[in-house]
Amino acid sequence: MEIIKGDLNFLLDTLEKQQAAVEEDQVEAQVKAILKEVQINGDEAVRRYTETFDKIKLTNFKLSEAEIETAYQNTAPNLLRALEAAKENIESFHLKQKQTGFIDAEKTGVIRGQLVLPIETVGIYVPGGTARYPSSVLMNAIPAKIAGVKRIVMVTPADPAGLPDSLLAAAKIAGVDEVYQIGGAQAIAALAYGTKSIPKVDKIVGPGNIYVATAKKILFGQVAIDMIAGPSEVVVLADEQANPAYIAADLLAQAEHDVLARAILISTSEKVAIEVDAALEQQLKTLPRAAIARQALANHGALIVVEDETTQFALMNEIAPEHLEIQLVDPMSHLNQVKHAGSVFLGAYASEPLGDYLAGPNHVLPTSGTARFFSPLGVEDFIKRTAFLSYTKEALAKEKDAVMDLAIEEGLDAHARAIQVRFEALD
Amino acid sequence: MEIIKGDLNFLLDTLEKQQAAVEEDQVEAQVKAILKEVQINGDEAVRRYTETFDKIKLTNFKLSEAEIETAYQNTAPNLLRALEAAKENIESFHLKQKQTGFIDAEKTGVIRGQLVLPIETVGIYVPGGTARYPSSVLMNAIPAKIAGVKRIVMVTPADPAGLPDSLLAAAKIAGVDEVYQIGGAQAIAALAYGTKSIPKVDKIVGPGNIYVATAKKILFGQVAIDMIAGPSEVVVLADEQANPAYIAADLLAQAEHDVLARAILISTSEKVAIEVDAALEQQLKTLPRAAIARQALANHGALIVVEDETTQFALMNEIAPEHLEIQLVDPMSHLNQVKHAGSVFLGAYASEPLGDYLAGPNHVLPTSGTARFFSPLGVEDFIKRTAFLSYTKEALAKEKDAVMDLAIEEGLDAHARAIQVRFEALD
Repeated sequence: MEIIKGDLNFLLDTLEKQQAAVEEDQVEAQVKAILKEVQINGDEAVRRYTETFDKIKLTNFKLSEAEIETAYQNTAPNLLRALEAAKENIESFHLKQKQTGFIDAEKTGVIRGQLVLPIETVGIYVPGGTARYPSSVLMNAIPAKIAGVKRIVMVTPADPAGLPDSLLAAAKIAGVDEVYQIGGAQAIAALAYGTKSIPKVDKIVGPGNIYVATAKKILFGQVAIDMIAGPSEVVVLADEQANPAYIAADLLAQAEHDVLARAILISTSEKVAIEVDAALEQQLKTLPRAAIARQALANHGALIVVEDETTQFALMNEIAPEHLEIQLVDPMSHLNQVKHAGSVFLGAYASEPLGDYLAGPNHVLPTSGTARFFSPLGVEDFIKRTAFLSYTKEALAKEKDAVMDLAIEEGLDAHARAIQVRFEALD
Repeated sequence: MEIIKGDLNFLLDTLEKQQAAVEEDQVEAQVKAILKEVQINGDEAVRRYTETFDKIKLTNFKLSEAEIETAYQNTAPNLLRALEAAKENIESFHLKQKQTGFIDAEKTGVIRGQLVLPIETVGIYVPGGTARYPSSVLMNAIPAKIAGVKRIVMVTPADPAGLPDSLLAAAKIAGVDEVYQIGGAQAIAALAYGTKSIPKVDKIVGPGNIYVATAKKILFGQVAIDMIAGPSEVVVLADEQANPAYIAADLLAQAEHDVLARAILISTSEKVAIEVDAALEQQLKTLPRAAIARQALANHGALIVVEDETTQFALMNEIAPEHLEIQLVDPMSHLNQVKHAGSVFLGAYASEPLGDYLAGPNHVLPTSGTARFFSPLGVEDFIKRTAFLSYTKEALAKEKDAVMDLAIEEGLDAHARAIQVRFEALD
């Protein structure tokens, strides 16, 4: 690959040109039609779309407990151990995110507070095809479980070849309550509206293709959704002591996801960048998904050399990457230079795939620069807050005039009168 | 008004029929055209739309500090005092929402944690016309300020008659950094894309008409947004000791907002319901916005009598109201029966307008049943989380096999190799 150098603006321009454009408009009409059909015809519409898109005729969408148990039994013991180990780490990390409400009784006659309550019913979308990842089931379901969600409903497209055992084993291990073999925009519609056989949920999480993403966006407000997921990306920051073979391996782990994945090195050492380039070529030789990784690197990858650490972090923060690896001397000391990133991997051994599977922090992360305003999926996504308030008559008397003055200023007389009536008879 | 009685299903059906339908489709095409125009032509497009929709030709969108200062000086002292009192309460409440990150170093060789960082730039939309509320400026800006947002940008439609002084005074008091006289879908587009004179923001909050709401929804993902706001609503729970005059006044405070507002009483006492009805008639006689309130009550209001407290709370939770008043004996003891509500007002003196203006909990709340999954606006809306992770080689060695087993199962060989390369040379 070409090594890119230049000032911050040049580098930003160069990277911007690589960004994948998403064509949403074409699919929107199609998706709207599907949503309407499912809203009107329920299960029958879902069945029809499943036959058309997933090539399978289903009489029953829901998997039985026996089917899930059998899949679990058929899963290799080493995989079950790995899933259990992952569960333990994901649980212990997300337990730290658990919030409690508060109550404030500091002011005489006034009690104010906030309850934290679980969202009742949640749908988890697991994409079909090669993206059917058991790890994603854990990452989506465990935070919901910790939040106290009562009913966790998983959907994933039906497959004439059957669903992978490990996926259903992950569902069992994560505590998913029900699994339905439905996918695409029709699955999102079924979860949002509810059908005879598929429960209406309060929130839908999990990634999906453009049809799924579009359906989620259209239905946002009708249900809650997590975020709009784009292609996956990693930025690796390196200095002269960084290990080029490790960096190359981590860039390839990103690039193998799909041809739109972004893998970017920002190095203060040109020598390291050149060695990473060589290591990429070397490692690509034997990589099963080399074709995908090569295309991703060619179209959306970059090996960038910058003058200094300031530029390195400035460029990274402008990208606001989903995954950030800091392979610098004393990595933790750089945490305060991170302004926008989904998940940060510090040092030579916190390889990004460790985070994808096992370490515990969530792997559902904001992509395409949205780490500027979105957060990793977490317990927070499965709760809602409710405020509460109690005043004595005496406490209200003290603030009565201020409330009434503001209400009158806003032209809302009934608001003022609602206070006044508590102190005197109205006309 | 008619007093409604029946079982839970009958009551739910009756209420559902009253729900206002929102026609989004017609405006969507219009809004998309506006967004595109602003994206391409920036300030010039915004200027053109402002002339068309707001009937004013602007050369400069931004208000000067002097203009804001003058407005502040021209605001009546009692209003300034009221705004300052509101600010103090809003601040003290929202300070309790402030989150910190965490670090977990419990496992040998493993450090995991989470940073909490402010969103950098936020846009606050303040609607035009009669809905130009100084209180909303405080409610939107203060939590952002507490979260640590660096740049708070307020937009509100230009008005040939000028903006209300109190609105600009509120902006100054709340710590808004910049005020622009732009509104509608064009303002949302300007904030999402940025123009030469209007800054691109990371998140847009604040209510607006259907054009504003549609623009926000379309741009969701490009920027973050708060929620999709619908008509305002209150549910009052009453028993035989509740004061009918207070309840009627609170229902009218809700009903005067607009003709789509919902004001619902659910009482276990028929006597109280009948007296509320009479009090409504009495109080409506002298209410300036009686015409609006009457229409809202007729189309979307209800006086409901239920058998028992269980039904009372079941019905309320199904509605998932934005505002909930619990005017029952020992109101706080009922908090644990609340599953879905935006903000709860306990007892006879926590009148809803007190919460709108002064008490401190936020008045930007989930509407139309979305309290099932959305929360009141708060400090949480203006931060984002970033996870971090550090492993020693020894710690990674312990989990190496589990990571690689899962990666291989998911067909992501480069993920497995990224771990492997740290322990042995790759082929």
